Amino acid sequence: MAVSSGVSAIRRVAIFGGTHGNELTGVFLVKHWLEHEGEITRSGMEVRPFIANPKAVEKCVRYVDTDLNRVFDNQSLRRPADIECAGPTGEHVPTIPHAQTNIQVHWFAQPSRLATVYMRKAVGKWLKLKLKGIEVGPQPQGVIRADILEKMRRMVIYALNFMQEFNEGSEFPPCSIEVFKVLEKTSYPRNENGELAAIIHENLQDQDWRALNPGDPMFITMDGKIIPYEGEHTVYPTFVNEAAYYEKNEAFFKTQKITLSAQSVRCKSI
Amino acid sequence: MAVSSGVSAIRRVAIFGGTHGNELTGVFLVKHWLEHEGEITRSGMEVRPFIANPKAVEKCVRYVDTDLNRVFDNQSLRRPADIECAGPTGEHVPTIPHAQTNIQVHWFAQPSRLATVYMRKAVGKWLKLKLKGIEVGPQPQGVIRADILEKMRRMVIYALNFMQEFNEGSEFPPCSIEVFKVLEKTSYPRNENGELAAIIHENLQDQDWRALNPGDPMFITMDGKIIPYEGEHTVYPTFVNEAAYYEKNEAFFKTQKITLSAQSVRCKSI
Repeated sequence: MAVSSGVSAIRRVAIFGGTHGNELTGVFLVKHWLEHEGEITRSGMEVRPFIANPKAVEKCVRYVDTDLNRVFDNQSLRRPADIECAGPTGEHVPTIPHAQTNIQVHWFAQPSRLATVYMRKAVGKWLKLKLKGIEVGPQPQGVIRADILEKMRRMVIYALNFMQEFNEGSEFPPCSIEVFKVLEKTSYPRNENGELAAIIHENLQDQDWRALNPGDPMFITMDGKIIPYEGEHTVYPTFVNEAAYYEKNEAFFKTQKITLSAQSVRCKSI
Repeated sequence: MAVSSGVSAIRRVAIFGGTHGNELTGVFLVKHWLEHEGEITRSGMEVRPFIANPKAVEKCVRYVDTDLNRVFDNQSLRRPADIECAGPTGEHVPTIPHAQTNIQVHWFAQPSRLATVYMRKAVGKWLKLKLKGIEVGPQPQGVIRADILEKMRRMVIYALNFMQEFNEGSEFPPCSIEVFKVLEKTSYPRNENGELAAIIHENLQDQDWRALNPGDPMFITMDGKIIPYEGEHTVYPTFVNEAAYYEKNEAFFKTQKITLSAQSVRCKSI
């Protein structure tokens, strides 16, 4: 069986929480690991936790001036100077702009945000880093739920264990996994003054990742008028009624189910 | 049967939403009623909706400089000038400071906050108004849930219908109702740096108004240590893991169940 052996060992890992200062799972875990490094220490790797946006964390707000999810578009990435100013590389992370080949995997420990995928992809391409994100939710802004925290903590620990086993020469067999791929965003209906004209229908509330079929209720107006989903195919909404997206006028993201396959993988240095 | 007939007819009603700018049920309903007054119009009464803290509503934050729930303590109420500056009587509600006998009932349409009861009691005592609050939740900050909105809307409409029937001479029979009375607040455990040392245990999460018995888990530390409730009597927690109360270090409120009784009531002018 074909084995991909083109992947180098992973020697440096940065774990980021607090890219959004009111997403407290990552903030709380990173603060814990800063004081208790044993849980994330792995032989043969340097693993360091960071708070990505300390000013936003201090105020417990998503961001102070600029949403870090929104600064890494293609245009800004053509101006590397901006990255050093505004990026996830702020005052607590001085090494990243100069570490293009040293930091192999750059973990964001942050709840309930798919959008950071864009940032990670863009920054990763530019810095030649491998960027992986873990987002767990739903969880209200400014709250730490024990169940969400435990999932996030386990996933980071599994990932570190995976990297260590990979470095030590374990071969991981081929696998496939069902995932949800974002298709498009759905906006809130607005009236002529720009005010919300309808809200998420209660049949759709709390139904992230569940099928939304043509004709199913999507929004409801104050007059009780139901606005149905009029697409042709079943979709799987997520980020339904997400507080952070009202200002962006995004009611939810439509996704489709797809299956990803991976070939087997083994560290090339073994 | 004894009938209380000492209560005057209710002629003016103010409905407030947005005392906290990120509690969107009241904001959304008041904005709707400002445009569609028919739903709250009742014969024989003047009913007016208001946004209580328009600056906080614009920014979608709880408050800008001062939490309106916290400005009406006994000390500030001895200085009436402060009320006009900082109170719920801000620029959109110029009539209240001068309307001590005119506004009979002053409704706050606002979700998920018991604490405003303090403000209402204090202001009501000072202004000689009748202040009633409706709070419905739980609902994350910055979100409108259709189910919560519908409950809030129905409760305000029932209250207006009640007032109209009362004004028209209906006699309401005696009744009793089971309620939860706040006993005390429970703080988060903190470490020597003032950081959270434990979070709400998952057995207590989402269990507002449910019995918490002596020995039941209350908090859990990152080391997995469970901190149980060590009181002598069963209590009923509410505001469990409320985002707005982290800054006040309040993990939840303990309440007890009590039964309130009301005698029959009829308008004295009939």
